[in-house]
Amino acid sequence: MVDRLALLATIGALPTVAAGIARPLFSGAEFEARTLVARWARASNFTLAQDLAGNLFVRRPGRVDGATALAPILIGSHLDTVDGGGAYDGAYGVVAALAVLEAFEAQGRATEHPLEAVAWAGEEGSRFPLGCLGSGVYAGLNALGDVEALVAADGERFVDARSGACGLLPGVPVREGFSRPAAYLELHIEQGPLLEAAAERLGVVTAIAGARRFRVTLAGERGHAGTLPMAMRRDALCAAAEVVLALEAVARALGDCVATAGYLALEPNETNVVPGRAVLRVDLRSVDDGRIDALEQGLRDACAGVARDRGVGVTIAALERRAAVPMDVRLRASLHATLAAAGEHAIDVPSGAGHDAMCLASVAPAAMLFVPSAGGRSHVGDEYTSADDLERGAAMLALATAAIDRELS
Amino acid sequence: MVDRLALLATIGALPTVAAGIARPLFSGAEFEARTLVARWARASNFTLAQDLAGNLFVRRPGRVDGATALAPILIGSHLDTVDGGGAYDGAYGVVAALAVLEAFEAQGRATEHPLEAVAWAGEEGSRFPLGCLGSGVYAGLNALGDVEALVAADGERFVDARSGACGLLPGVPVREGFSRPAAYLELHIEQGPLLEAAAERLGVVTAIAGARRFRVTLAGERGHAGTLPMAMRRDALCAAAEVVLALEAVARALGDCVATAGYLALEPNETNVVPGRAVLRVDLRSVDDGRIDALEQGLRDACAGVARDRGVGVTIAALERRAAVPMDVRLRASLHATLAAAGEHAIDVPSGAGHDAMCLASVAPAAMLFVPSAGGRSHVGDEYTSADDLERGAAMLALATAAIDRELS
Repeated sequence: MVDRLALLATIGALPTVAAGIARPLFSGAEFEARTLVARWARASNFTLAQDLAGNLFVRRPGRVDGATALAPILIGSHLDTVDGGGAYDGAYGVVAALAVLEAFEAQGRATEHPLEAVAWAGEEGSRFPLGCLGSGVYAGLNALGDVEALVAADGERFVDARSGACGLLPGVPVREGFSRPAAYLELHIEQGPLLEAAAERLGVVTAIAGARRFRVTLAGERGHAGTLPMAMRRDALCAAAEVVLALEAVARALGDCVATAGYLALEPNETNVVPGRAVLRVDLRSVDDGRIDALEQGLRDACAGVARDRGVGVTIAALERRAAVPMDVRLRASLHATLAAAGEHAIDVPSGAGHDAMCLASVAPAAMLFVPSAGGRSHVGDEYTSADDLERGAAMLALATAAIDRELS
Repeated sequence: MVDRLALLATIGALPTVAAGIARPLFSGAEFEARTLVARWARASNFTLAQDLAGNLFVRRPGRVDGATALAPILIGSHLDTVDGGGAYDGAYGVVAALAVLEAFEAQGRATEHPLEAVAWAGEEGSRFPLGCLGSGVYAGLNALGDVEALVAADGERFVDARSGACGLLPGVPVREGFSRPAAYLELHIEQGPLLEAAAERLGVVTAIAGARRFRVTLAGERGHAGTLPMAMRRDALCAAAEVVLALEAVARALGDCVATAGYLALEPNETNVVPGRAVLRVDLRSVDDGRIDALEQGLRDACAGVARDRGVGVTIAALERRAAVPMDVRLRASLHATLAAAGEHAIDVPSGAGHDAMCLASVAPAAMLFVPSAGGRSHVGDEYTSADDLERGAAMLALATAAIDRELS
């Protein structure tokens, strides 16, 4: 599995390791990665299928196949990367899912449910401007027709890219419709520092954080940096600075949440001009929607404060609202029991980042297992998880799949 | 005079009034403006001269001309504008200076000193990257050879532009050397809000503010906005926000000074990434160098604070240091006396902006008179001073010139 990840990491690799990997959906590199996974699957005589969202399914039948088969247990993640991403985000979960099917096949081990290893299309919003594209369609959260109309930055429509040379895989049957699975499991690198900081090797995800994004526009008045007295200024950067620090203080005081002002644009942004306008983009997240409410209130209070005290105009536009998605309680308990029985220690962790499991949770019990990310780094070329951690996670995924197969029967 | 300013405002005018005027040194527009001033001067049979820095002199002899003539009293300002500047900044002082010579000529009034109306070259650092270019050379603060080697953004060297079609005026003698004047007077719009706020019509400048500029680089650590806990962050924007607000507080507490963070650049400046790096540019000004020292200390203290409390790396680079330039005490008193005798009220005001008088003060007694700027606005297309204020200022300049001519004899 580690060798397979190393091989996948060469597909779409940018000139240097530090530059990372670029594997956007329906690019040559992403097509090659899907083709490689399909080749591995065919080597085990697994059944392949794909759907019109671009998702790829590798199926190993359960004890009963055909018309009376149970709904499958889906295990997977994604093969696309952000521009300059790392070798593990997504790819690890796909390769590990395939390894579970291979292990069961090698052991001649029958399962009650069919098992399907899935590579979800376009989780990163790579190429087409929609995150969790494939899993969103699969779960019915995004209409296929809307996705087909999406246009990439290069001008190509989804529907055209899908039928192009780097679109759907030739020779792989296209499934109609999107069937409801019995359960969904996703193994992923944490992309954060909590496991490493706690010196833990495994994390059972409690929930995927909800997120709200806002654009805050602060309209002050530009002026000459040399001639406008301090008392007469309506400095948009000073106003923005107050909002940024107030929001940070609210997040720190609340705990179990994060608030980030990652983007700031000033006008005119010249050394000798008092800033007339500042645009902030703010990202609020927590696995507890109540805390996101409190963060949003803190943001609004801070904005009202600078409007009142500094005479700047403030507008707050909501860009995105996504509720927190708790993982399935029964599957979480099952994961903990499996890990404990195998002599592994694990902790509960939230997921600050979004994942395909977020979509699947709306149609099936869903759970996630995390392994550590070195330095909490992700979406960068030097994203790293040790081979030991990768193997441990994959082994636990196999045990968990077997346990859940039994428990859901 | 108001008509002449309106005519000059059409030279280099951008498509709309709001867009303003672009008249960079040795451009077609700036050449046309100099040519027009020269034509007006010739109409009164004044002597024209120019120097190798591009400065243009209109001379009316004093009572004694020739080898035994006294040093001249210089009166002037500049004809170049920033890109998108207004109709009054600089042009007003040149047109008013010429009007003084014309008024004395019309009255047949002899002066002890020769009077020279001057249009200084490139005060705005327009085209060639040096502010107060012409007056700096004249006063010996910039070596002519260094200025000749300057290269415009369009690649042309000063020395080539000067000999080109829009360079020195054909038919106007070129003076060798730069003689020391008896005094220098400059009439200018305030470019700030102090006169308007005080409902005053005239301001006698106490000093031209000193200025220090710094680039402050705050090196934190970038991270995932969803997964990096608040307690583990080293957010460069939060650090920058603290510095900005601390500096504002110091400036407010000190009084009689201004501090501006007009420029901020974040890396990577993406909504979902904790900022890893912030670059601020900071501008500190006061007519009191002690206050600038205190502002600089406040900046350094704030930077040390965020380095200590937030674990960010901070580097402070000095970009520019210019000491405050007090105007000549005797000339200031003379101006006040002249205005009072004429029944006009005036207040002392600092100049937050730089002016050619700053350079001239190093070789001669220098003083400045300000008229109000509507809304304190300058370097914009809708820069405005009423005709009444323009005429009053020019009339006072004539009286002041006559008084100083007497007093210095």
